[in-house]
Amino acid sequence: MSQWIWRYGEFECYHNMILHTRRQQYGYPEPVVWKLYAPEPVVCFKKEVTTEGGVFRIHALGNISVIVGAEPWNQKKYGGQREIKLEPGTTTVLIRVANTETFPCIYVDGVIESDDTWLCDDMSQDWKKVGTSEMFASSDQTPDHFPFSYLPVSWVKKEKVEGGVLFDFGKETFARTCFSGLGEGPVKVRFGESREEAMDAKWCVIRFEDKPEKGVLSYIPYAFRYLFVSDENVEVKAEYEYLPLEYKGSFHCSEEIINKVWDVAAYTFHLNSREFFLDGIKRDRWVWSADAYQSLFVNRYLFFDKEIEKRTLIALGGKQPFKVHINTIMDYSFFWIISLYEYYKTYGDKDFLEQIQDQMKAVMDFCLERRDEDGFMRGKPGDWVFIDWAPMDKTGALCGEQILFAKAMECYAAICAVIGRDDRGLGGEAEKLRKQIFEKFYDTEKKVFIDSYESGKRNVTRQSNILAYLFLGCDDTVKKDIYERVVLNDEVPQITTPYFKFYENQVHCKAGNTNLLEKSIREYYGSMLATGATTLYEEYDPTMTGVEHYAMYGNPFEKSLCHAWSASPIYLLGNFRLGVENTGIAYDTFDVRPNPGDLKGFQGKVPVPGGTVSVSVDQEEIRVYSEIPGGTLYVDGKTYTLEAKKECRVRRKSDV
Amino acid sequence: MSQWIWRYGEFECYHNMILHTRRQQYGYPEPVVWKLYAPEPVVCFKKEVTTEGGVFRIHALGNISVIVGAEPWNQKKYGGQREIKLEPGTTTVLIRVANTETFPCIYVDGVIESDDTWLCDDMSQDWKKVGTSEMFASSDQTPDHFPFSYLPVSWVKKEKVEGGVLFDFGKETFARTCFSGLGEGPVKVRFGESREEAMDAKWCVIRFEDKPEKGVLSYIPYAFRYLFVSDENVEVKAEYEYLPLEYKGSFHCSEEIINKVWDVAAYTFHLNSREFFLDGIKRDRWVWSADAYQSLFVNRYLFFDKEIEKRTLIALGGKQPFKVHINTIMDYSFFWIISLYEYYKTYGDKDFLEQIQDQMKAVMDFCLERRDEDGFMRGKPGDWVFIDWAPMDKTGALCGEQILFAKAMECYAAICAVIGRDDRGLGGEAEKLRKQIFEKFYDTEKKVFIDSYESGKRNVTRQSNILAYLFLGCDDTVKKDIYERVVLNDEVPQITTPYFKFYENQVHCKAGNTNLLEKSIREYYGSMLATGATTLYEEYDPTMTGVEHYAMYGNPFEKSLCHAWSASPIYLLGNFRLGVENTGIAYDTFDVRPNPGDLKGFQGKVPVPGGTVSVSVDQEEIRVYSEIPGGTLYVDGKTYTLEAKKECRVRRKSDV
Repeated sequence: MSQWIWRYGEFECYHNMILHTRRQQYGYPEPVVWKLYAPEPVVCFKKEVTTEGGVFRIHALGNISVIVGAEPWNQKKYGGQREIKLEPGTTTVLIRVANTETFPCIYVDGVIESDDTWLCDDMSQDWKKVGTSEMFASSDQTPDHFPFSYLPVSWVKKEKVEGGVLFDFGKETFARTCFSGLGEGPVKVRFGESREEAMDAKWCVIRFEDKPEKGVLSYIPYAFRYLFVSDENVEVKAEYEYLPLEYKGSFHCSEEIINKVWDVAAYTFHLNSREFFLDGIKRDRWVWSADAYQSLFVNRYLFFDKEIEKRTLIALGGKQPFKVHINTIMDYSFFWIISLYEYYKTYGDKDFLEQIQDQMKAVMDFCLERRDEDGFMRGKPGDWVFIDWAPMDKTGALCGEQILFAKAMECYAAICAVIGRDDRGLGGEAEKLRKQIFEKFYDTEKKVFIDSYESGKRNVTRQSNILAYLFLGCDDTVKKDIYERVVLNDEVPQITTPYFKFYENQVHCKAGNTNLLEKSIREYYGSMLATGATTLYEEYDPTMTGVEHYAMYGNPFEKSLCHAWSASPIYLLGNFRLGVENTGIAYDTFDVRPNPGDLKGFQGKVPVPGGTVSVSVDQEEIRVYSEIPGGTLYVDGKTYTLEAKKECRVRRKSDV
Repeated sequence: MSQWIWRYGEFECYHNMILHTRRQQYGYPEPVVWKLYAPEPVVCFKKEVTTEGGVFRIHALGNISVIVGAEPWNQKKYGGQREIKLEPGTTTVLIRVANTETFPCIYVDGVIESDDTWLCDDMSQDWKKVGTSEMFASSDQTPDHFPFSYLPVSWVKKEKVEGGVLFDFGKETFARTCFSGLGEGPVKVRFGESREEAMDAKWCVIRFEDKPEKGVLSYIPYAFRYLFVSDENVEVKAEYEYLPLEYKGSFHCSEEIINKVWDVAAYTFHLNSREFFLDGIKRDRWVWSADAYQSLFVNRYLFFDKEIEKRTLIALGGKQPFKVHINTIMDYSFFWIISLYEYYKTYGDKDFLEQIQDQMKAVMDFCLERRDEDGFMRGKPGDWVFIDWAPMDKTGALCGEQILFAKAMECYAAICAVIGRDDRGLGGEAEKLRKQIFEKFYDTEKKVFIDSYESGKRNVTRQSNILAYLFLGCDDTVKKDIYERVVLNDEVPQITTPYFKFYENQVHCKAGNTNLLEKSIREYYGSMLATGATTLYEEYDPTMTGVEHYAMYGNPFEKSLCHAWSASPIYLLGNFRLGVENTGIAYDTFDVRPNPGDLKGFQGKVPVPGGTVSVSVDQEEIRVYSEIPGGTLYVDGKTYTLEAKKECRVRRKSDV
């Protein structure tokens, strides 16, 4: 079956470039703040083919030149001819394509077909397997256009106000809009995540002032719940734009607020799962590496869509020369390398590792060159250092950065082992760095990690310790100390971002303090929903009221009210309540450790390669049904081997 | 005065990309056969400014976001606002620009102005001085559009033939065309450099078959002398498209055929001097490094246009990662580095060397990594090895390639010395390689160089020996042997390309055999003109007749009849007859060595920085008038210091 083919990575490169130049901010298009990479303008496709003779046809984005024949002395040139007759036998087909507007790609059908067995060169004799996607399997579905789906959505309330009309769509959406019945204009159009935003002429983030043509104005999709249009006669048509993803994971429990959070998290996450994993759907709509890292985990308990993970990781990796951290942020380069290995573990996609290895090496080389003499990485001029929005001591070498750096080196070495490439000693380097982290950042009196040793302040934050807990491979004593002395210690400032809640809640669950996940969901997310949220916010402070919730970065409505990193309950409930976790490569082995936590019971599904695992817990019984083999069920200290497609029922101990 | 500014090199990168995707071949657009580089989609411009306060305006290609203030705590964001008011005092202006269609660039006027004092970053904290051009000094003259000039041109003969009309424009031109009065069509339009080409439906290189709109068809500029249109009612309007360059050099002598060759060479060269130096105006219209190298020399005796040299060298250098030779050809990478130093010597433009040094290092590093253990460079899979179209022995390491490689290293070291950068020992490496070339390729019996030592054939060609003569720094004995045993030896196969005639004629002139330049011009170019050439051909064999002259690459009309590398008489007559040659940096010192050669007399001008040097030779007297100081006149073994703007007259010895 024919597919569109392109130089591996170029599809992602192109859509990443387009996506990052689509932000709207206070009436202007806002250029991205980090480095973008452009597609290659000219490439050549090649395949050795054996046929009984016949015609093949070429569809292309760009101008083509075709050569048939492997060697200069038997080559025949066909120029831009789109239908070519092959003689019976074996020969080589070369198709050179130039495209300076989108990116070069082709679709070949007939006696030969384009698919992932073709090779592609960027005109430097650097032949690689092509990129493909199941989305582009017909000649008229061209890959310059990302094939979203559309559904009409309607307002639920309409109100004449301030000389115009305010539409309320009832919940956050992302939709293309067409306004008709307009006068001569110019007409003001404001897309608000909140009513207040839509009504604020100055601080509404997505807003336009345009002259209608024949009474009509149309806009590409933007995020909104409310729409204000400064014309009382306006009619609106809106179409929700989305990636059609199957909801493979599910979770339903005895407590309505938790179910509601799960549902809203799933919707929030779906809105942000598009060409790539986005941070939020209103403001940036950009691809951030550490945000994407968390999205990988959520995706695995909701859509289990390998393709969006792959697209995101390719897009984030960028191109060579690699001269600046991913998203300009040091920790984000580390998270990208860690994500590559996480991706491999989940899907067993060795082919991807083969394709990405050169870029991975470029990113790692960039990091290694920026090490200081002591092996630590400090922010160089122009680098951003994130970790979290928190009152951390960011002097000199930071504990959190070194932990992630060591983990990235460990993952790099693990990937090299998979694809049989020399890890250049990075496995050992990771170990060495971990020892140094203990030496410099572990406070033997406090028995926890400090943010920085260079300042002398010996400041302790949740962030550094949680990262140590999750990424440093600490022993149980150290972990216990971290949990008790930091995570359960109210004197250490609380995490305020859903971003870091993802990590903190993991620690709660791993440390076995089983009711804190539910507490966090109820209190943090529950009260967020109580403010009227129809999707989950980028940040949330329960002590605020009213429009305070919408402010961020010093501006009244700049907070994203639909942010992917807030969807972590999907992952947490799937992994720590339904209890399904991959322990091998692509779930060739996996654990099922159902854990009621603070809940009376629940049922749900976790997607795995080739099916799902269904888990149901009530007060008497645990039932697990896996569509694939490889699972081990853990209940009350006992293990049960799960057979494929055979339900396993275990009675719960009465005292649990 | 404000100018458009861009990230240094991006203007050339963009136009190089566009230019290389404009070729037409047998009815199809033909993609380039080598690697192209795309412009950066997002960059940031910066300047620290001190003003008394007031408004500045921004014009941009792309979306912008403006920040005023040097540090995060005093920065103010203006988004896409195009008019901004500055407070009095000193601050920093940052303008981020995204453009995925052409390339990001801005024009700022008002209280601050964009010019070459601004810096630009490709979002990797890699701040560099911006690129500018005098061509773009007004806000509405945007650099995405190369500003050519236009002149109407008319046909001189019109003929109804084969159901259509054949127009003869009298000479080769490069013009945009508009055909009117057409029927419904489809109409065939053929652009021919020869009558035969225009009349050949199958083998005419530039041809179209299009449906007129309202009786009209328009085409972007193509090369032609003849136009065939398959509609008897057609009317044509044509406008010659050209770069307005001043003819600063001139040459006029006692022999009409030589004057005619000079004039036709100048016109040929002008047609090919556009965004960059092109190879030929009909077929490729591409930028080839070794062709461009020769164009530098011609330019210096005709237009003395520094800007086209700079644009060409920037475009050829490409970007990083540098993964394949320039134009895919090994010798062309060497010629590029040699050209950089030639450019510096001519114009003293140290700023250019500063800007290009990173790319020069990338190209040289690529070459150094491809050396074999013996230090020689052999063609690797995918490399092309050119030197010349000639029956050379191309086995293993080639003499010509090593000679150029050594010269490139020498030039690299010389450039490093100018800009105070470490040459990494390449000066010494060049010397070492030269010794090795003598050891392996110099045949001590034949007393000349062989092409290859690995084959055992010990083949002798003009090409290898001429390159040794010109680039290897041989002593006079070796040079004399080369000249007598190879260049004057009719048993060594003749040079057949004007490309290598450029080098051979230099050797004739340097070796003092003073009448051979005229002989070559008369016989080779004179007979080319006798075939009806109105511009100079890519290749010419005097033994051919009729349409044979138009065939190349196995196809009847694929030869370029207007090829830049044939314009060398401009340089040769200027350098070896008028005798003006730069001997310092930017003509701070220069020689004038008038040499009548085989001519009774001549007069002409050679451009130099800030003026011209006029030289006139008749049978009695030599007169030289230089508008700049620094010159030394050499006549009959005596030297005369040339004062600026003062004529120097020297009587010739009667026996010369």
